[in-house]
Amino acid sequence: MSERAAVESPDKKTAQWTRKDLLSLEELTREEIEHILVTAESFKEVSAREVKKVPALRGKTIANLFFEPSTRTRTSFELAAKRLSADLVNFSSSGSSTSKGETLRDTAKNIEAMNVDTIVMRHSSSGSAEYLARSIRAGVVNAGDGIHEHPTQGLLDIFTIRERKGTLAGVRVCLVGDILHSRVARSNIWGLKKLGAHVTVCGPPTLIPPHIEKLGVEVCYDLNKAVESQDVLNILRIQLERQKGAFFPSIREYAAEYGITRDQLRRAKPDVIVMHPGPINRGVELSSDVADGPNSVILDQVTNGVAVRMAVLYLTTLVER
Amino acid sequence: MSERAAVESPDKKTAQWTRKDLLSLEELTREEIEHILVTAESFKEVSAREVKKVPALRGKTIANLFFEPSTRTRTSFELAAKRLSADLVNFSSSGSSTSKGETLRDTAKNIEAMNVDTIVMRHSSSGSAEYLARSIRAGVVNAGDGIHEHPTQGLLDIFTIRERKGTLAGVRVCLVGDILHSRVARSNIWGLKKLGAHVTVCGPPTLIPPHIEKLGVEVCYDLNKAVESQDVLNILRIQLERQKGAFFPSIREYAAEYGITRDQLRRAKPDVIVMHPGPINRGVELSSDVADGPNSVILDQVTNGVAVRMAVLYLTTLVER
Amino acid sequence: MSERAAVESPDKKTAQWTRKDLLSLEELTREEIEHILVTAESFKEVSAREVKKVPALRGKTIANLFFEPSTRTRTSFELAAKRLSADLVNFSSSGSSTSKGETLRDTAKNIEAMNVDTIVMRHSSSGSAEYLARSIRAGVVNAGDGIHEHPTQGLLDIFTIRERKGTLAGVRVCLVGDILHSRVARSNIWGLKKLGAHVTVCGPPTLIPPHIEKLGVEVCYDLNKAVESQDVLNILRIQLERQKGAFFPSIREYAAEYGITRDQLRRAKPDVIVMHPGPINRGVELSSDVADGPNSVILDQVTNGVAVRMAVLYLTTLVER
Repeated sequence: MSERAAVESPDKKTAQWTRKDLLSLEELTREEIEHILVTAESFKEVSAREVKKVPALRGKTIANLFFEPSTRTRTSFELAAKRLSADLVNFSSSGSSTSKGETLRDTAKNIEAMNVDTIVMRHSSSGSAEYLARSIRAGVVNAGDGIHEHPTQGLLDIFTIRERKGTLAGVRVCLVGDILHSRVARSNIWGLKKLGAHVTVCGPPTLIPPHIEKLGVEVCYDLNKAVESQDVLNILRIQLERQKGAFFPSIREYAAEYGITRDQLRRAKPDVIVMHPGPINRGVELSSDVADGPNSVILDQVTNGVAVRMAVLYLTTLVER
Repeated sequence: MSERAAVESPDKKTAQWTRKDLLSLEELTREEIEHILVTAESFKEVSAREVKKVPALRGKTIANLFFEPSTRTRTSFELAAKRLSADLVNFSSSGSSTSKGETLRDTAKNIEAMNVDTIVMRHSSSGSAEYLARSIRAGVVNAGDGIHEHPTQGLLDIFTIRERKGTLAGVRVCLVGDILHSRVARSNIWGLKKLGAHVTVCGPPTLIPPHIEKLGVEVCYDLNKAVESQDVLNILRIQLERQKGAFFPSIREYAAEYGITRDQLRRAKPDVIVMHPGPINRGVELSSDVADGPNSVILDQVTNGVAVRMAVLYLTTLVER
Repeated sequence: MSERAAVESPDKKTAQWTRKDLLSLEELTREEIEHILVTAESFKEVSAREVKKVPALRGKTIANLFFEPSTRTRTSFELAAKRLSADLVNFSSSGSSTSKGETLRDTAKNIEAMNVDTIVMRHSSSGSAEYLARSIRAGVVNAGDGIHEHPTQGLLDIFTIRERKGTLAGVRVCLVGDILHSRVARSNIWGLKKLGAHVTVCGPPTLIPPHIEKLGVEVCYDLNKAVESQDVLNILRIQLERQKGAFFPSIREYAAEYGITRDQLRRAKPDVIVMHPGPINRGVELSSDVADGPNSVILDQVTNGVAVRMAVLYLTTLVER
């Protein structure tokens, strides 16, 4: 790191970072997750400064390669890269070589050949990030691959819980909603379990994957029951764009059964925190008074997202190769 | 400001800038408008240097949030931000969270939560900029809201007139064309009147708002008469995209009646200046010989636009909050 | 150049660079081409450094103005500009003023008026880059104009050949495929001939322009014959988007007749290099084993593209005007 790092060096006792890629929380050890969280803490402080910029990745190149549209996640990575002083280029799938019939591997090999250090990719196919990471020497950060994982979202959720609760050990977290199609749920489960949290999933039976208990989580179909005794409610987005089957009768019925309202919160612990990865469908997953209420940490998640992505880009880009 | 400001400090006697937002010229005092103009003068000098860059906003983040397409205005703000050394991110409405059903307020809150200092917004709804400014702590610069105002265009027009005529006091300015739908007209009228100019509006009766005289402007329906004795002709764009009603019989008839040609200019003062916010419909609002002729200051407006936007971003972003 | 240049000054004996534009290889002298190649060598070294950045164009502004979609070429120019520390803005045709009916000249005059130093343009009309260069004082770099030229592609191809073969003099290069519609072929032919290479073109008779021999190239319709005795095979892309006529019966028949396979390569010199401007249609112009095989220098071309574009932007932007 030497004089490149303008931030405090994370605890030297923490294991050295050795991965060029961040593909999933499943593959990380507890120590690696903690290493990212500690690094993100120093970077959160940077974003609160008058001059929100450190020279840590000056002269490095990061590419955003998004095959699914997502202004928000793309921008979070873009700001993370810029605040580390990296050069950032945005690739979009429309108008790109891929739309001219090029393979993903060729697109990535070409980006790499322009001396890009790290590629941040979002793709609709589960496993595409891992495939890419094996194909190129450049680093790969998974910004969501199909219904597999969205590791930086999992990390920013965990960062936010730890910030509020002080620890993950023994913290009771309930993921609510469409567990079946949610890469956010999958990353949360892996990460939370590794750090010692107790995880419950709650949603309509059609949206809970069979045998999910094998991941070490509790299953509950009744939201009224589930909210009691939780420290954290992490409410997933109903992604209408992903639901081609009819997994529930109607949005209105979903909201009545699984939407979080002020009434629901009365059953919960007074210091329960309410999370949501955004964008919110107000009145569906969450009522507005909950989204904007004192238990909500939704905007903290967004702020922490930049810090976590700075940490991930910093660690993966500067790893020895 | 201290060592952050690489430009000459604007006249200390000018009132301190106190606004985090620039929403309209209607709300500014004469002194505030003059403060922006003086600041823009220093920044115009920066854009003429070999190295067109000052560190004034290093480590600050500006977001362009454009819900209506406009490469030109967006780029002018982008260059303004970059020449101040700010980090700039572009949001577009397509593919963004808003297209997934998110409210404007949630989109903006999310951008703000990424520690963005100032949001530059263009939106089709009049009043949206003011609404946003009240909703967030970050600064808001209105880059055009519906048919309400486009304050930086008004400021760059005024800057250009002052540059050519030395003052605004007593200068006779005629706005020609679609006054009814024009946010540019509205910003010009407010700004020009505050600085003591005499304003005439000229266009087809269907495109002049009733009771506009109450803003202190003269109304004239006959272009031949209007061009006489003016110091400035500011020709508005016929925005076909905004005109769903039939406000005039045909483009050809509009051009015959209200287009500025070399013949029209013969009736005007020899030193009249011709302005247009662009993009020009050549042969409609202006003939090509006028657009490219010696009275045209259209490209000066573009150059001054960057300087004025540097001033606005500089003042709003660095204000005490 | 003085302290602006962080790279080694190119050979002082080389003629001074005097052009604000790079429009074609046809108009360049042999010395000018060599000047670009030597400059690109220093910049290639920059992209291999830990910190891939020099302050050569700090405070300069480059605009990408792409009327045809091309993420790859646009990004190559974007990275070139950023590694020279220039500010870069991307214009796209959709949503821009041009889509509102503005002329190309007005669009460019407006960009120039924002104190942009150099415009990189791709346009579907042959000759558009030259027209633009005559219309504005800012520099113009042609990133592909219709079927006319794509000079930076020609330069990066030549750079790559020289890197592998040590020289161009006497080197035998065969361009394979759609010569008729290929701006890449045209730029290659002009550049290669000026540097003393022997050029053959090979493709279906319908895709070879009549009288092309007058440019000093050999014509061959039989690929089996053509590959023998060549030092370089430069395989052009079948651009389905450009082929409205029926120039060959089917993709399958094109591939059988003119696709390069491992079998074809057996007839070639063992040290023949295989080039392709990308994106590759695998199984059409090239089989996968050739594209990824030891003779392929396709990814070197991509790497060299950034270096060549750094050289071109550096020379044109800093020229005395």
